[in-house]
Amino acid sequence: MATTSLTETLRLASGHVDLTAYDSRETPGFDGTKKDQPRAMAALADALSDHQERLYAAGATGTGDQRLLLVLQGMDTSGKGGTVRHAVGLLDPQGVRVTSFKAPTEEELAHDFLWRVERALPEKGQVGIFDRSHYEDVLIGRVRALAEPEEIERRYEAINAFEEKLVESGCTVVKCFLHISPDDQLERLRARLDDPTKHWKYNPADVDERLLWPRYQEAYEIALERCSTDAAPWFVVPSGRKWYRNWAVAQILAEHLAALGLEWPEADFDVAAERERLDATADVGSAVA
Amino acid sequence: MATTSLTETLRLASGHVDLTAYDSRETPGFDGTKKDQPRAMAALADALSDHQERLYAAGATGTGDQRLLLVLQGMDTSGKGGTVRHAVGLLDPQGVRVTSFKAPTEEELAHDFLWRVERALPEKGQVGIFDRSHYEDVLIGRVRALAEPEEIERRYEAINAFEEKLVESGCTVVKCFLHISPDDQLERLRARLDDPTKHWKYNPADVDERLLWPRYQEAYEIALERCSTDAAPWFVVPSGRKWYRNWAVAQILAEHLAALGLEWPEADFDVAAERERLDATADVGSAVA
Repeated sequence: MATTSLTETLRLASGHVDLTAYDSRETPGFDGTKKDQPRAMAALADALSDHQERLYAAGATGTGDQRLLLVLQGMDTSGKGGTVRHAVGLLDPQGVRVTSFKAPTEEELAHDFLWRVERALPEKGQVGIFDRSHYEDVLIGRVRALAEPEEIERRYEAINAFEEKLVESGCTVVKCFLHISPDDQLERLRARLDDPTKHWKYNPADVDERLLWPRYQEAYEIALERCSTDAAPWFVVPSGRKWYRNWAVAQILAEHLAALGLEWPEADFDVAAERERLDATADVGSAVA
Repeated sequence: MATTSLTETLRLASGHVDLTAYDSRETPGFDGTKKDQPRAMAALADALSDHQERLYAAGATGTGDQRLLLVLQGMDTSGKGGTVRHAVGLLDPQGVRVTSFKAPTEEELAHDFLWRVERALPEKGQVGIFDRSHYEDVLIGRVRALAEPEEIERRYEAINAFEEKLVESGCTVVKCFLHISPDDQLERLRARLDDPTKHWKYNPADVDERLLWPRYQEAYEIALERCSTDAAPWFVVPSGRKWYRNWAVAQILAEHLAALGLEWPEADFDVAAERERLDATADVGSAVA
């Protein structure tokens, strides 16, 4: 596996964020072209499998409190779903919990905006995936004025405090912004209209949202700038090329899991004694109930 | 994809169940040997992907109430976890929810045994996976006398009524018993002791349970016999060969998803009109916020 370079490469730099300065079709850190991606993914699958099983083992045996939360954000068609399918799909489903956040329910609205997020956090040993997240409350929340300006303002710090507490408690937080250009989105929405098997993914409201592109980009820039912290930085993943996006998120995941440095839990029993006990049960099947 | 033959082949016959009559190392319905399995799995992955996405699409667009519940039961080391990893791992994690049922919590014990199960059921469009299930309440529940005999007795009919209601409401229920022999288990427990990276999977209590092998088999035979219904039959999956077990469960899943006969949801909007609306947004990115 690669060193931690992609994590460093894609980590959002501090200071003012200008998304127009990012090229959505770049492939930083990837050694090769599209045709080399399947092999890279296969290698990553092995690395992820090993690291994830160590995490799972620590959780299952109670020898570690670690868990990981992957937050996926991005404009419509940026590929949050595709990333779950192709990158998260490399993980063992036993240790994965995917939560897709939709418009909040009445019950959720009756609570603080972080309430529903707290309830969806991964348990120890698990990898939690958020397809959209608490960031919607400062994205569409801001653009569509779904809350008072003071409340929106309050949320940035609330998010930072929440994520910091999460990290302190042993949860690695990996936040990926899947960056596409307006042209990428146009092309993908057209593709959905052109293919009857993709019509279900298309919603006329997507065009209404698209018309607010500059305001969404501004909301993203503010959120990325104010909520990229040492504890939980943002990663800007160029997502104009799907194959790169899938690899990049999988690679960032693998680097973060590797960084946990987990060993296999040691036996808390006497291995030789258990071998003897087990050998004594060789004929158990032939016993009569 | 194959016809529905595996579903028919592995479906439990009605009448008295004698598990000693089943060979755990058979490979019924599989055309070839172990070396042919990876190609068969790759073909299944494509079929599953297509069928599952149709199910997901129906749920996402509200055009269908269908969902599927896969129940995995089997003795320790029968491979419930491995089946989740390798068979369920072929599905898109976005539409999958895995629940591993452990010893019930105090809160769960304060409710009827089906309470925690109801709460873990898949939503429409989703595939729910139960690693252990409500059947534990008539398996370890019976063997370890965790409830009064009358209560255990009551549960068989309660399970049948519960599953029938579930099926009537649009949930396909697929129950797979992963059948291994006592020798298979012995070999696998030994392998766990021999490999330090597998020690975490070993628990000395596994040997205590193994000593009750005949009583567990009897409890399984009763549960399979009494709870294999037309609405929700049991499948007995020979699981002495891991590669066959993984293929068989994936194949049964694929056959059940195919049997739903789902079409892609039709557009509920005017495609031509949307193309025009979309074209009019071509320059949206260059607009000033």
